[in-house]
Amino acid sequence: MKNTQVVLARRPTGYPVPEDFRVEDVELLEPGVGQALIQNLYISLDAGFRNWMDEGAGDAILPAMPLDEPVMGLVVGRVHKSNNTQLPEGQMVMARLAWQAWSIAKPDDFVVPLDDIGDLPLSYHLGVLGDTGMSGYFGLKDIGQPKPTDTVLISAAGGAVGIVAGQVARILGAKTVVGFASNDEKCARLEAEVGYDKVINYRAGNVSEQLGQACPNGVDVYFDNVGGTLLEVVLDHITHGARIPFCGAVADYNQDSHGPRNLFNIVTNSASLVGFMTHERVDRYGEARDQLTAWLQSGELKAFEQVYEGVEQTGLAFCDLFAGNNFGKTVVRVA
Amino acid sequence: MKNTQVVLARRPTGYPVPEDFRVEDVELLEPGVGQALIQNLYISLDAGFRNWMDEGAGDAILPAMPLDEPVMGLVVGRVHKSNNTQLPEGQMVMARLAWQAWSIAKPDDFVVPLDDIGDLPLSYHLGVLGDTGMSGYFGLKDIGQPKPTDTVLISAAGGAVGIVAGQVARILGAKTVVGFASNDEKCARLEAEVGYDKVINYRAGNVSEQLGQACPNGVDVYFDNVGGTLLEVVLDHITHGARIPFCGAVADYNQDSHGPRNLFNIVTNSASLVGFMTHERVDRYGEARDQLTAWLQSGELKAFEQVYEGVEQTGLAFCDLFAGNNFGKTVVRVA
Repeated sequence: MKNTQVVLARRPTGYPVPEDFRVEDVELLEPGVGQALIQNLYISLDAGFRNWMDEGAGDAILPAMPLDEPVMGLVVGRVHKSNNTQLPEGQMVMARLAWQAWSIAKPDDFVVPLDDIGDLPLSYHLGVLGDTGMSGYFGLKDIGQPKPTDTVLISAAGGAVGIVAGQVARILGAKTVVGFASNDEKCARLEAEVGYDKVINYRAGNVSEQLGQACPNGVDVYFDNVGGTLLEVVLDHITHGARIPFCGAVADYNQDSHGPRNLFNIVTNSASLVGFMTHERVDRYGEARDQLTAWLQSGELKAFEQVYEGVEQTGLAFCDLFAGNNFGKTVVRVA
Repeated sequence: MKNTQVVLARRPTGYPVPEDFRVEDVELLEPGVGQALIQNLYISLDAGFRNWMDEGAGDAILPAMPLDEPVMGLVVGRVHKSNNTQLPEGQMVMARLAWQAWSIAKPDDFVVPLDDIGDLPLSYHLGVLGDTGMSGYFGLKDIGQPKPTDTVLISAAGGAVGIVAGQVARILGAKTVVGFASNDEKCARLEAEVGYDKVINYRAGNVSEQLGQACPNGVDVYFDNVGGTLLEVVLDHITHGARIPFCGAVADYNQDSHGPRNLFNIVTNSASLVGFMTHERVDRYGEARDQLTAWLQSGELKAFEQVYEGVEQTGLAFCDLFAGNNFGKTVVRVA
């Protein structure tokens, strides 16, 4: 039997391009001692994994990805064959495995059994109920803490994290929710379908001027998914005591980016810039999933997914994230 | 009777130079209705006042300083003659007035009666017991919160804020206290007299390498008084959960400075950068002064002052702050 994989063909320079990846068919291996064969059903595309594609990029979280090996990523799958009693056949799991149709899970791989989410789609475990949805939840619940008079601004408003964060800001009671997105079509959809009061196309016109118009009383909470030059613009609009949950940094891969020159505005506004990562709040995943599930079931929160069909599309789907061609969570349905 | 003043002769470009200021003798005015004539005894030199020397720099805190008028600054003085019942003659005060021998305090000027500090010198109200000392206290007590295993790093370690912060870090129980200063002589004095474990001359050699040697386990707390490129270096050495109390930004006046390009390290380390200003904690001045006074009296905390003699030296004393020619708090003894 064959296994279709997407391997890292070369290390991306700046934003990834499709040529950085290569589809390969290899022989499907049998699981060894303590291992399980997982049939991957959905693959999650997460900009953060770009971090580990650079030479020597290994850190405390993950090793650097080797060339010519399947690209690492989060998946949802079903245990197909198992030599691991903790992963019985038929068990649905979420795991950090790879961009391929089938994966061998070794005993020390990150593999967690899935909670029952009733009628909600399995792929939600990778999006609104996964790392990205929980980022939106924790960033606002713990750091942003919007008050009823607050204006909350969200960058990458249509991305997997932003699209949840924008809705959570509203649910938690923010007065005004404003976003940044990368094209007019996405801005219009975010206002019409997701409930943003205003979404600014940051690639058109004077961004600072548009931001001033959309947030005449300034920005109380900036949920920052991108960093870079957009943060510099926002720092000129923050209010006293502003909170900046700082989550991703897609813009960091742009080689021309410089840091914000007006970081001193953090001092003059007694503001705070707080980095956070969802995986550090593992003890609160239950709380976050229960709350997000309840909001999904009540209809207060909507899930938005962009689904690519077929594992061989995974490289393209990943590149599209960086090109801004995504709306909500991007996943690949494997077969 | 004559009054000697130092006026803003022109707006500084980048760091101030002595030619930006001019000494003038003018006729001493009588206090009008509701006004008091203050004999200034000490003038405080604070880099932050550079902010309001730019054209159109007025903000919520202060108006921009007018050209050819005495430069605004904090002083300690004695009420000499008064038409204001709240400021009786002989009362010692701390006030935001100007660089001159005598000042007229109007009813809405910031003038506060001084607490009794026993045998401690009056000038301490401008330094270790004033805004700068309290900045060191609040930044570490509220934001830095050093733990017994922590390495605390302080920029502008020999400045008015840093020299207090370094000692407070030790008193609060930090394991290792490291500083940045601008020349070897200052570094040596800070180690010998103030108790820093190590002070790095950030103008000599590879700063990142020296920092790695001085802080082999990384930087848990960075009390940042300068921002700019030094922050970028430090962000490569912060530990997980690092806290960065962000206080002044002398480096911001350097026109060539860019923001830190590695701000994403805040995310990967779940660190926080927290701006703060002492004057917002006015309800806790009593706590801070009592604690700092107790530490001064027990000998745990030492005050360091650099005293210039004569009001006509005030412009030079201010410029020396930016040139790094200061050790501890810089004040001018007026007469």
